[in-house]
Amino acid sequence: MNDYDYRKIDSLFHSRIRLAATSLLYHDGSADFNWLKTQTGATDGNLTTHLRKMEEAHYIKVVKSFMGKKPHTEYRLTDKGRKAFEKYIKRLELLIQPNQNTGSSI
Amino acid sequence: MNDYDYRKIDSLFHSRIRLAATSLLYHDGSADFNWLKTQTGATDGNLTTHLRKMEEAHYIKVVKSFMGKKPHTEYRLTDKGRKAFEKYIKRLELLIQPNQNTGSSI
Repeated sequence: MNDYDYRKIDSLFHSRIRLAATSLLYHDGSADFNWLKTQTGATDGNLTTHLRKMEEAHYIKVVKSFMGKKPHTEYRLTDKGRKAFEKYIKRLELLIQPNQNTGSSI
Repeated sequence: MNDYDYRKIDSLFHSRIRLAATSLLYHDGSADFNWLKTQTGATDGNLTTHLRKMEEAHYIKVVKSFMGKKPHTEYRLTDKGRKAFEKYIKRLELLIQPNQNTGSSI
């Protein structure tokens, strides 16, 4: 095992749509479906599928509330999801920043 | 279009094996098949498939030479591949580093 081992990259985050959506949730704290859709550029169907996959892994949660009398649904990272995403980011950084790699010389 | 737009992430690099292999080639300059296999942890079949995909996109090239009398085959990033990878890395950094994002607030 070494820093270039692809199996150390969390496959759950390593889809373009899931990475984009998770980054947004990580930085902004929460977002509703339409905001996620607008920001990531994903279609309804794709986004739904990817969010569900992360929800099933308990990486994100759906929070339902009311804004006045109007129901409001938003997505948030769970603690588990936040920690896993930070681990994923560190793994990416190790891969793309050469000075952090060790034992990678031929 | 904004920094969370998943379509800006180069799908050719955004597979775990291709990212791991490309990072290695980017940092080390070149590598032979066995070294790539050992370092990335990929199987022969998977690695072959992923390298071929990058070769078809002209992101990597195969360089054949001799080490003494023994034929030696190694992989290198092309200029196109190197530039595309740097662009891909910048895109990842924009996604995962909050202070570089603009217009991402709700």
